[in-house]
Amino acid sequence: MTNGATQQCPCSSLNLPKKFGIVLFPTFQSLDVFGPLDAFQFLSTHVEGIEIYLLSNTLDPVSTRFSDTKFPGSPPSTVGFSVVPTHTYDNAPEDIDVLFVPGGLGTRAIGEQEQNILVPIRDLIKKRFSKIKYLLTVCTGSALAAQAGVLDGYKATSNKSLWHWVITQGPNVNWVPVARWTVDGENDKIWTSSGVQAGMDMSLAWIAHVYSEDVATKIANSEEYMRNIDPTFDPFAKIHGLGQREI
Amino acid sequence: MTNGATQQCPCSSLNLPKKFGIVLFPTFQSLDVFGPLDAFQFLSTHVEGIEIYLLSNTLDPVSTRFSDTKFPGSPPSTVGFSVVPTHTYDNAPEDIDVLFVPGGLGTRAIGEQEQNILVPIRDLIKKRFSKIKYLLTVCTGSALAAQAGVLDGYKATSNKSLWHWVITQGPNVNWVPVARWTVDGENDKIWTSSGVQAGMDMSLAWIAHVYSEDVATKIANSEEYMRNIDPTFDPFAKIHGLGQREI
Repeated sequence: MTNGATQQCPCSSLNLPKKFGIVLFPTFQSLDVFGPLDAFQFLSTHVEGIEIYLLSNTLDPVSTRFSDTKFPGSPPSTVGFSVVPTHTYDNAPEDIDVLFVPGGLGTRAIGEQEQNILVPIRDLIKKRFSKIKYLLTVCTGSALAAQAGVLDGYKATSNKSLWHWVITQGPNVNWVPVARWTVDGENDKIWTSSGVQAGMDMSLAWIAHVYSEDVATKIANSEEYMRNIDPTFDPFAKIHGLGQREI
Repeated sequence: MTNGATQQCPCSSLNLPKKFGIVLFPTFQSLDVFGPLDAFQFLSTHVEGIEIYLLSNTLDPVSTRFSDTKFPGSPPSTVGFSVVPTHTYDNAPEDIDVLFVPGGLGTRAIGEQEQNILVPIRDLIKKRFSKIKYLLTVCTGSALAAQAGVLDGYKATSNKSLWHWVITQGPNVNWVPVARWTVDGENDKIWTSSGVQAGMDMSLAWIAHVYSEDVATKIANSEEYMRNIDPTFDPFAKIHGLGQREI
């Protein structure tokens, strides 16, 4: 938690991104969302005018329960919790600056679930990509962005335990297997991270890049968060059996 | 996210804690809850029968919005999101094994908000403490446990930027200023962590202690989480100006 003091970001500018759209879907990975969201909520105490929208197909609460996504090998656990969206994909504000796509088992939905859950997300990414300032993906969120075609020709990374599945989702993406996160695209528009916690390191690096290192450090200190500030330091690539580069 | 493979914990036993009660209140700190909860959700794919209850005063969605808690110096940010409780404090299952108390600005509520938000939590902790196997607190969650009197005579730690406020909430607690987390009480019943991310390190250490190191490692690898496994390594004590011990 913060100590309550509000300090204005010295980098204050009308052109800074202020409006965040966070994509939610059944069986999203909890920490993929709430790690970065914790940092974005702290960011709102340093930068005036930050708004965060939680987007989903409907306004019904969205559950993290693994068993809600059925595909061969999905775990039997019935544990999960639900978060309340603020907007649907269709009625989300038009001027979103930052589109944030998490991963989770839901990204592997098949059949009818794929039609209902994933197709609307791919459509959202396609529709919004040219208008947003930044696309941030965590974990298998990059598989959804790849399926939408917006990563073609650009560097991207993803969850390392599901790497071999992820890279088939975007054969024209420059997949980087050993990376905590990657940055690419015009004006560094595309940020993709490796699995789960890597999204927190990426989000703080993105905050440092866009707002200021000072603000990122203040947020990390408030969160007592031990940052990995090196995007190439990725011990989990080796743990999950990946080499230097696989395209 | 997991690769979908479910592996039974080799430490499987009828006496292992299975039922988790997570305390939610307005202006809880997002990552205090969802860092550990991500690990507990993965735990449910390794240990059969895990159940997680989200507890609050009512079944209304609970918001993280800073501005919902008003006290001198509270930040003006209107950013926040809402989570759906599964039970109230009053109708929560009687056989909860693990009571988990996060921190957040809500722990500093005053006046009528204190009466409505904090008194029921203190009552819950007092009422449940003798029945549970483990009490886990993150960040200023330990202030609530201290107010409830259950930490008296035991080691505890808390958020480092609010340390001087926290320690006044429990004059008979053995507060440890330089600690990522502490363990104390009969059968290592009481686990308290420093601020925000420290709760994730503590939760994985607790999983290693209670279930097995193998399960904790598997969860950390699934989360691509870089653990701090040393409870005495706490760089944020120095950053926030604390010395070796302050009681």
